[in-house]
Amino acid sequence: MFIGIDVGGTGIKAGVVAKNGEILVEKSCPTLPKRDPRIVVDDLIYLIHEVINESKVNKDSIEGIGIGIPGIADPINGDVIECVNLYWRNIPLKEWILEEFDMPIYIDNDASVAALAEFETGSLKGTNNSVLLTLGTGIGAGIIINGKLHSGTHGVTEFGHTIVGENFYDCTCNRNGCLETFASATALIKYTKKIINESKEHTIILDKVENDLDKLDAKTIVDAAKEGDKLANRALDRLIKYLKIGLANIIYTIDPELIALGGGLSKAGNFLIDRLTKEVNNFKLFDDVDIAKIVLAKLGNEAGIIGAAMLCKNK
Amino acid sequence: MFIGIDVGGTGIKAGVVAKNGEILVEKSCPTLPKRDPRIVVDDLIYLIHEVINESKVNKDSIEGIGIGIPGIADPINGDVIECVNLYWRNIPLKEWILEEFDMPIYIDNDASVAALAEFETGSLKGTNNSVLLTLGTGIGAGIIINGKLHSGTHGVTEFGHTIVGENFYDCTCNRNGCLETFASATALIKYTKKIINESKEHTIILDKVENDLDKLDAKTIVDAAKEGDKLANRALDRLIKYLKIGLANIIYTIDPELIALGGGLSKAGNFLIDRLTKEVNNFKLFDDVDIAKIVLAKLGNEAGIIGAAMLCKNK
Repeated sequence: MFIGIDVGGTGIKAGVVAKNGEILVEKSCPTLPKRDPRIVVDDLIYLIHEVINESKVNKDSIEGIGIGIPGIADPINGDVIECVNLYWRNIPLKEWILEEFDMPIYIDNDASVAALAEFETGSLKGTNNSVLLTLGTGIGAGIIINGKLHSGTHGVTEFGHTIVGENFYDCTCNRNGCLETFASATALIKYTKKIINESKEHTIILDKVENDLDKLDAKTIVDAAKEGDKLANRALDRLIKYLKIGLANIIYTIDPELIALGGGLSKAGNFLIDRLTKEVNNFKLFDDVDIAKIVLAKLGNEAGIIGAAMLCKNK
Repeated sequence: MFIGIDVGGTGIKAGVVAKNGEILVEKSCPTLPKRDPRIVVDDLIYLIHEVINESKVNKDSIEGIGIGIPGIADPINGDVIECVNLYWRNIPLKEWILEEFDMPIYIDNDASVAALAEFETGSLKGTNNSVLLTLGTGIGAGIIINGKLHSGTHGVTEFGHTIVGENFYDCTCNRNGCLETFASATALIKYTKKIINESKEHTIILDKVENDLDKLDAKTIVDAAKEGDKLANRALDRLIKYLKIGLANIIYTIDPELIALGGGLSKAGNFLIDRLTKEVNNFKLFDDVDIAKIVLAKLGNEAGIIGAAMLCKNK
C-alpha cells in the first residue's frame, strides 16, 4: 500500500493506493498557495493522516509516500527546487514530511508522475519505452525507458522547453522557440488571437466568444476547426506542424514504441490524433522502419494520485 | 572475451576484446562496399577467424560478437535495415554470421557503439545517464540511460535529424531544419562557402585554400577562427548557436549528467567546448539547477571495436 499525493496550484489531493494502482480512499483540500509553504505542507501532512485513518489500513502496511509537484525536485535530497505556480523555491519538502512519517518518500514532476500512472494502469501499460506528452497551459513529457520512469539526473526533463524554431513571442522561460510556445493550448490561443487581429477575415470563433477574445479558449478553436472554420484550421495546422516536429524530435532522440497525448488539448481526441499520426508518418526518416504509435492518454484526474503512489514502486 | 567489429565505408576492423575493453588483437580489411553485400560479409567473417586464430584464445571462451554499422539495424532480428554508405538495405547480417559462428550476435548503430565504448573505458565512464554526440559529416548520438546503452525500440535514435529551425538547404533526409544541417562539419563548410560567396569580404580562409573553395574543410575554418578571422568566427558562431540548441534539447529531453563530443569537429578541442559550455549555461532554464557538463570524448579510432565488443556485455 502506498500514499499518493497530487499537489496542484488549486488543490492538493491524497489517496491510499494499492500496488495495482487502485485508489482505496481519496481526499482533497485547497492549496491556497499564497500562504507560507510550511503551512501548506502542514495541510498536506494532515491530509495524509486523514486518508490513512479513513482507509482503516494499518499504518505499518504503508510502504511509502509519493508526491507529484508542478515543478522540479532534487532527485537526491527531495528538496523542491522550484514550483512557479505555488511560489515555492528551495522547499525541503521531503525533510518536512519525514518529521511526521518515517518511511520512504519520493517526489517528482507532475508530468513524470502522470506518465508513471499511464504506464502502470493506462495507455502506456505493457510498454518498455514510451512517453506521455501533456498538452495544456504548457507542455510536459514523462518518459519511460526500459520499464522505468526516467526523470533525469537533475530532475529537469522539460520537453516543453526544447527549441523547435523561432516564434513571434518569447516563452515564459525568456528564451525564444520553445515547443510549448507553438503547440500548447496557450500557444494555440495566442496565435489564433494574433491572426484574428491581423487578418480581419470572418471566423465563427468570434461568434462563439461573442466578439470578446478574452473568452477564447483552446476548446472553442478546436470546435470551430471541426466545424470547418478556415481561420481556426489555419491556427490548428500551425500547431500540428510544430507538434509534429516535437514528436519527431522525441522519436529521433529516444525512439519510444508509444507516445500518449494527455492534458487539456488532448480532449480534441481523434481529430488531433488522426492528423498528427498522418503528419508524423509523412515525416519519417526510413520508410521501412516503424516509429512510435500516437494514442490518447487514458487516465483522467486520478492520474496524479496513482502516479505519485507508483513512484514508491518505481524506485 | 568478445569479438568487436567496426564496419565503415572504407574499412572493416575486427578485434578480440577483453571484458575490461582491452583490445588483444586487431586486424582490418577494406570494405569495398560496391561489391555484393554477401561477399563483403564473407570478408568480415574471414576477418573474425583471423583475429581469433591470431589471438590464440580458445574459441569457446568467446562469449559473443558485436558489430557496429554506419546505419540502422533491427534490434529484434539483427537485420541491417539501411546503411547508405555501404549500399546495404535489408541485409540479414546476423543470420549470415550465425551460419559460421554459433554464439550471441549484437548489431547496433556506430554512434551508439561509440557511446558504449566511451561509457566502458572513456569519457562517460562512471556515469549513469550520459550522451556521446558525434560531430562529423553528420551528427549522431549514443545514449546511456541507467547505466545501459539505449538504442531505442526500432533502432532509430537519429539525433542529427531532430529539427531545430529552418535552414537554407534541405537535409540528405529531404526534410528541412535537421540539427546536422546546422551543426555538423558538412553544415559548417556549406554555410562558410555561402557567406564567402555572398559577402565578398576578406577572409584568410581563401588564402588557406588557395582560393579553391572545393578544398575547404572544417579544420581550415576552425583554424581561421582561432586566428581571429571574422568571417570564420561568424560561421562558427552560427554553428555554436544551433549546437547549443541541440545540446539544450537533449538536456531538456533526458537530462543527462555528462555529454561528450566526438567526431571530426571535436578536434577543435577546448576552443569549442569552452564556448559551448558558456552558451549552454547562459541558456539554462533554472539558475539553481546543474545541467550536463560538456566534455571531449576520449577514445579515438579504436572506439568502434571496443564499443562493438561491449554490446555483448551490455545486453
